[in-house]
Amino acid sequence: MALDLSLQAGELTARLVDIESVSGAEEPLADAITTALEPLPHLAVHRDGNAVVARTDLGRSARVVLAGHIDTVPVAGNLPSRVSGGLLYGCGSTDMKAVVAVQLLLAAQVAAPVMDVTYVFYDCEEVESERNGLLRLSRSSPGLLAGDFAVLLEPTDGVVEGGCQGTLRAQVRATGERAHSARSWMGRNAIHEAGGILAVLNGYQPRQPTVDGLAYHEGLNAVGITGGVAGNVIPDECVVTVNYRFAPDCSAEQAAKHVREVFGDWEVTVTDVIGGARPGLQHQAAASFVQAMGGTPRAKLGWTDVARFDALGIPAVNYGPGNPLLAHSRDEHVALAAVAACEARMRAWLAG
Amino acid sequence: MALDLSLQAGELTARLVDIESVSGAEEPLADAITTALEPLPHLAVHRDGNAVVARTDLGRSARVVLAGHIDTVPVAGNLPSRVSGGLLYGCGSTDMKAVVAVQLLLAAQVAAPVMDVTYVFYDCEEVESERNGLLRLSRSSPGLLAGDFAVLLEPTDGVVEGGCQGTLRAQVRATGERAHSARSWMGRNAIHEAGGILAVLNGYQPRQPTVDGLAYHEGLNAVGITGGVAGNVIPDECVVTVNYRFAPDCSAEQAAKHVREVFGDWEVTVTDVIGGARPGLQHQAAASFVQAMGGTPRAKLGWTDVARFDALGIPAVNYGPGNPLLAHSRDEHVALAAVAACEARMRAWLAG
Repeated sequence: MALDLSLQAGELTARLVDIESVSGAEEPLADAITTALEPLPHLAVHRDGNAVVARTDLGRSARVVLAGHIDTVPVAGNLPSRVSGGLLYGCGSTDMKAVVAVQLLLAAQVAAPVMDVTYVFYDCEEVESERNGLLRLSRSSPGLLAGDFAVLLEPTDGVVEGGCQGTLRAQVRATGERAHSARSWMGRNAIHEAGGILAVLNGYQPRQPTVDGLAYHEGLNAVGITGGVAGNVIPDECVVTVNYRFAPDCSAEQAAKHVREVFGDWEVTVTDVIGGARPGLQHQAAASFVQAMGGTPRAKLGWTDVARFDALGIPAVNYGPGNPLLAHSRDEHVALAAVAACEARMRAWLAG
Repeated sequence: MALDLSLQAGELTARLVDIESVSGAEEPLADAITTALEPLPHLAVHRDGNAVVARTDLGRSARVVLAGHIDTVPVAGNLPSRVSGGLLYGCGSTDMKAVVAVQLLLAAQVAAPVMDVTYVFYDCEEVESERNGLLRLSRSSPGLLAGDFAVLLEPTDGVVEGGCQGTLRAQVRATGERAHSARSWMGRNAIHEAGGILAVLNGYQPRQPTVDGLAYHEGLNAVGITGGVAGNVIPDECVVTVNYRFAPDCSAEQAAKHVREVFGDWEVTVTDVIGGARPGLQHQAAASFVQAMGGTPRAKLGWTDVARFDALGIPAVNYGPGNPLLAHSRDEHVALAAVAACEARMRAWLAG
């Protein structure tokens, strides 16, 4: 199970794919990573459960954090890995062992980066938030994750996606009074009342603010609605579940306040809310990263683990080779050329 | 199990209550009724499953049909019957063995009524429509049910309730296009679209027509709504289940057409519809019935088995002693005085 860190990035990716690491069962892979990095004199390696953190400590003026998860969704008959037509197939190939391979090669081979680097390999990204290894580290060892700028290495098709939007879910409740539907005027129909909630949603104008130079796009939508007692009863309750996606210039608290105001005529229960992350592209480390990766960065609209860094006060972007649409698919694969290009660009960025 | 038809109506009600006859298990009671009526020379008795039909055939110019069901909802620890403070308690006492007792006494004792009379004792009223004994008779032996006017002897607190409204249920479907809720503008939200359906419902002006002298009151209501795929998905479908209660001057076909027109912008699937029944109060037999029972008749707004008669072209009303709100309750009971009063009035009506 020893990892050979002199392989090409694509070859190493294949080795990593072949070490099965479904969420919760990452120990063999975490062991292999620890064993491969611990002997290297320029790295301090820390182990926390199935997460591994390796840091340079060269006294550079800036520190960047490169974070990738080592777990995968359940295997779907797509192991062991195989190569065909320049593509590497297998569970976790694009999401995200290709970039874990890049992390490992850079950690091993770039002994004197221009910035100090913290390489984070974490567990349980593909399952419920409470098991997430990056969340656990951010709570138990925030100092280990400290830095000026972070890159979450999720597949983005090789485009830098800055920060992320926050997300809030709330139940907006319309109430009424039950009655037999043959004498509907004896009651008050909560589903009819919910028409007012839908009218608010239909009239809502989402913000499209620019934050740290990137254009975000908010949204407030019903994602669920339920009401009704029986086919002959005027219902006394109708609940609309709304999802508010908010730009990173708005905090979780502000988002909750906004939704309560928008639906001021009804009872609002916020069921979950988590803030987004600013992209921090004005930072020098971020600017050099964007330049090294090429292309025009765009705002990340969906929520990602970059928000874990934001919670620690660290701006962050998302970046990785591979098509995110292939993630979690039986047909998951990554182009070997894209992995090599990613490694070359990141190596150039760190080597300066 | 022999029924003594010389008892007082209240006493006979107690005997009937004590012959358990939950829907589907009415045979012992149907046997007892058959056995009690068959020997009477002025009646022709027909048996159909657990239904019994007994008819005079005196060549009168009019024939009235008196129909009552002999089944009950499941016993709820409320058997055997008991009398307390002038009230007879027990499963089926008010719904509707009290009036079955009245039917039996009239059938036995009014040998020469001023109108020919058809006494219908039927099974399975308390369960799904397809098992309903009156529906079965109306299909297999419509001639047995023929008449100029019918009374369905369900409890109405002693008030004549004419005819009944029809009822229609339909699914009105709003569609859209799925998208990730972080990029909601890539899709089309079907729940938001359903706001248009609710706006139609909120603006709907129900008719309140007068039919055969009685004031009906229609209603069009949402009785259910459902939509949503997941907490992060813009939903592509939202279905509103509506219930249209329509006056008996509107046929089932007209009702379906109306609902399709009202929701012309959406896909409408009528899932069930059944017409109502005209009260027919202009008929002489009906007028004499109303006069004999006293009080001011009112329109029946909920759907009842009187519609089975309407389907045979027979106008019908609902009438019975007892509080309908006590039906199906563990505490079900009927006032013995109300049963006696009902019997006296109906006897006077038939005896002329």
